[in-house]
Amino acid sequence: MDIVIGIDIGGTTVRVGAITSEGELLAWRKAPIEAARGPQAGLEKISGLIQEVLQDDDVAITTKPVSLLGVGIGCTGPVDPVRGVINNPYTLPTWENVPIWAWLEDRFSVPVTLENDADTAALGEYWIGAGRGVKKLYAITVGTGIGTALIVDGRIYRGLDGAHPEGGHQVIDPSGPSCYCGQNGCWEILASGTAITQMGREMVSSLSEPIKESSLEGIQDVSKEFADSPLLKMNQDQIDTRKIAELAHQGDDLASKIMQKAVDYFCLGLANIIVLFTPDMIVFSGGVMENVDLYMPAVEETIRKLDGIVPAERIQIRQAQLGSYAGLYGAAYTILKKVSS
Amino acid sequence: MDIVIGIDIGGTTVRVGAITSEGELLAWRKAPIEAARGPQAGLEKISGLIQEVLQDDDVAITTKPVSLLGVGIGCTGPVDPVRGVINNPYTLPTWENVPIWAWLEDRFSVPVTLENDADTAALGEYWIGAGRGVKKLYAITVGTGIGTALIVDGRIYRGLDGAHPEGGHQVIDPSGPSCYCGQNGCWEILASGTAITQMGREMVSSLSEPIKESSLEGIQDVSKEFADSPLLKMNQDQIDTRKIAELAHQGDDLASKIMQKAVDYFCLGLANIIVLFTPDMIVFSGGVMENVDLYMPAVEETIRKLDGIVPAERIQIRQAQLGSYAGLYGAAYTILKKVSS
Repeated sequence: MDIVIGIDIGGTTVRVGAITSEGELLAWRKAPIEAARGPQAGLEKISGLIQEVLQDDDVAITTKPVSLLGVGIGCTGPVDPVRGVINNPYTLPTWENVPIWAWLEDRFSVPVTLENDADTAALGEYWIGAGRGVKKLYAITVGTGIGTALIVDGRIYRGLDGAHPEGGHQVIDPSGPSCYCGQNGCWEILASGTAITQMGREMVSSLSEPIKESSLEGIQDVSKEFADSPLLKMNQDQIDTRKIAELAHQGDDLASKIMQKAVDYFCLGLANIIVLFTPDMIVFSGGVMENVDLYMPAVEETIRKLDGIVPAERIQIRQAQLGSYAGLYGAAYTILKKVSS
Repeated sequence: MDIVIGIDIGGTTVRVGAITSEGELLAWRKAPIEAARGPQAGLEKISGLIQEVLQDDDVAITTKPVSLLGVGIGCTGPVDPVRGVINNPYTLPTWENVPIWAWLEDRFSVPVTLENDADTAALGEYWIGAGRGVKKLYAITVGTGIGTALIVDGRIYRGLDGAHPEGGHQVIDPSGPSCYCGQNGCWEILASGTAITQMGREMVSSLSEPIKESSLEGIQDVSKEFADSPLLKMNQDQIDTRKIAELAHQGDDLASKIMQKAVDYFCLGLANIIVLFTPDMIVFSGGVMENVDLYMPAVEETIRKLDGIVPAERIQIRQAQLGSYAGLYGAAYTILKKVSS
């Protein structure tokens, strides 16, 4: 049986899986990427994981003899999908101009592909997840940052010279805080997991400050409203998106207020995606979006409001189905497309 | 010789041209559309203009015998390009569900196409103008409103069910004024020609108001700075984008300040287009963009700032070449693509 290796390289973890051409994940491994140990060590580790997966009983028994069609990689960007080079010293320290494509092609003598991980995750959902066969699929991943991808008829939308657009850095409020992207108030700096943590810590800190005389009345009222919130009893480093979302689910007013602010920012960027792309489906993924129930009322309101301008109410909104495996499936899919085209 | 009819239906004017398959505009007519007289009168007028153009000496002599390949239409939206129906009672009063495609097919017995006019203008620039053969071409038209179009490999990017995305209604500053699109601070309400006129009138009006005691010092300073501006001597209805841009060109400080505000808003939306689409080329068109020299310093600064996130500095920025004829060429091109596919 034909087997494809799918690889997902993130800032902390690398996942490797063996997937059939029908989309069945037979075996997988994950390991810390330890990027700072250098690309050579990383490539050897990935190579080892590939061999492990191929020798896994579930692969060897099911598919004997194993016919390896290729190795598909999704990697945290920037990557160059045209030349097959990872160039991401930001989240993979020391990984500057790493020709992973050539290296693996040499090692395994099969076709190799390299894509941005937002693109492979979206492709996975298109192939085998929430967006099967959807003509225009837009994927939004909210985690540490915000990643976006557009899949048109099963193909990744690419910018010039194969560049991956960075929808997470659209500006939604120019009066917002500054981002490493060089702009103020982009989507990522206002609505990502990092942003929610930051907003939570700032709000708790401002509520815990000694009350200023000049604005005594207002602050006292606000403090009283949230006096019972467990957030006010936590240290700054205990406050993060997971905790805030958990408390919001339990009905804590302060946590709900913080989440609502993030949800409103999220919906500003979502509205822009809708008017600029008007896709058939939008798929939400990423850790923050595990709290999608906190987002849906505002998402639905946003869509209702836009329906006069574009057919927003006909856009399907879906939660991703493949979780942390979407990237493996999508990476494998790029090989199937490559070898069949 | 093969001839295609291109039609451009705007809110006030309809243009009809006869174009060869090599892209030569042989003859054209324009007339007021007078939409309020009803779609039947409009269709008869368009039909008359087509006949006039086909009988024009330059067509009849050059191309005898005339072989009409089809009629391509670009029309101010919303239009339904799949069913060939104009549904735009907003800028074409009474034109609700007008099946122009079927009507013209019946009258002339040739293929007919119908597209949004932002799309046909962009296609015209792709075929025969500033964006010839460009892989991913993004067109931004700034006039009364802001229209956008994306052309990928010579094909119009369409949203779900053929919908035309409305990039002019992306939100760039949620603290901005409210728009008929249902949102606050969208691109069109802050950076279109209408917005510039509005900002100019408001600024002049606020500078002409009696000085309030509470803020005496600041206002006096500002008033003094602009005291010489001819804008302060004009009636509100004399102040419009054309006048403001003209005075800005002459170095008038107040007019320059108004234009700069509009340019800054324009660049916020432009930056979003760049990070979300990263096209090979962006083409500017529309009446306001005849003042492109006032925009370029800020546009270049915007691009420089974004170059770390996406390869912004490799995006070609061009002024449209076909002016008010772009739509005719693009409409004709849709027929050439249709009959050859």
